[in-house]
Amino acid sequence: MPTPIVRFRIDFAKNSYVGPGKIDLLEAIRDSGSLSQAARDIGMSYRRAWLLLEGLKTSFREPVTLATTGGKGGGGVTLTSFGETLVKTYRLLEQDIAEAAVRRLHAITPSVDTHLTAKTRTPRRPLARSQN
Amino acid sequence: MPTPIVRFRIDFAKNSYVGPGKIDLLEAIRDSGSLSQAARDIGMSYRRAWLLLEGLKTSFREPVTLATTGGKGGGGVTLTSFGETLVKTYRLLEQDIAEAAVRRLHAITPSVDTHLTAKTRTPRRPLARSQN
Repeated sequence: MPTPIVRFRIDFAKNSYVGPGKIDLLEAIRDSGSLSQAARDIGMSYRRAWLLLEGLKTSFREPVTLATTGGKGGGGVTLTSFGETLVKTYRLLEQDIAEAAVRRLHAITPSVDTHLTAKTRTPRRPLARSQN
Repeated sequence: MPTPIVRFRIDFAKNSYVGPGKIDLLEAIRDSGSLSQAARDIGMSYRRAWLLLEGLKTSFREPVTLATTGGKGGGGVTLTSFGETLVKTYRLLEQDIAEAAVRRLHAITPSVDTHLTAKTRTPRRPLARSQN
């Protein structure tokens, strides 16, 4: 029986949200010190990574990343303390949600059809004829 | 300071998920006894409602709805006991998640930019003129 996965995003305000893409990106920035390297590491286009980071910049009063100057390669990017807090908080909430899901869904999961992948998908047209 | 809203869906298995659209629809079916009326009540197209219900049918071994026969109007649709359990469980998990969000996000919400709605949006057309 597969464990259910809860996919979520946090809407902080209109046009201000944080979901798995932004958090994965921030973690990859923290680990690589570079936006372009971070994008490559998580298989995201540079354009999308840049747009997600712009979205974070306009969502919060405090910056989530900080340009680093100097050193080999001529500078990069790192997380601010607020950026670190955002990532940690998201991951903690993710754990809470996963635990709540296990606790709540035990009455549902035994009824999940685990043979789904072998089934015919939902037809695209409601009026399509079927032999069933 | 706005309260953050967590939007979520539960992925039970491949091609088997339940999100707010399906749950709203099931509640509207329970309340109206009719798929077409339920769709109208929640401002959803009949086609989309039909597709969501088909998705639920193929996701679980047990039916979530049951055709009712006879009576004025010649029959309708109602929730099975499993359908009721699915709705209740989702709403309880939703409460858990909302509570966890409040508990976890108190360190983040003060930094949310609440002037977002008054800010210039990312323009859909970069060159569109505006009087603002």
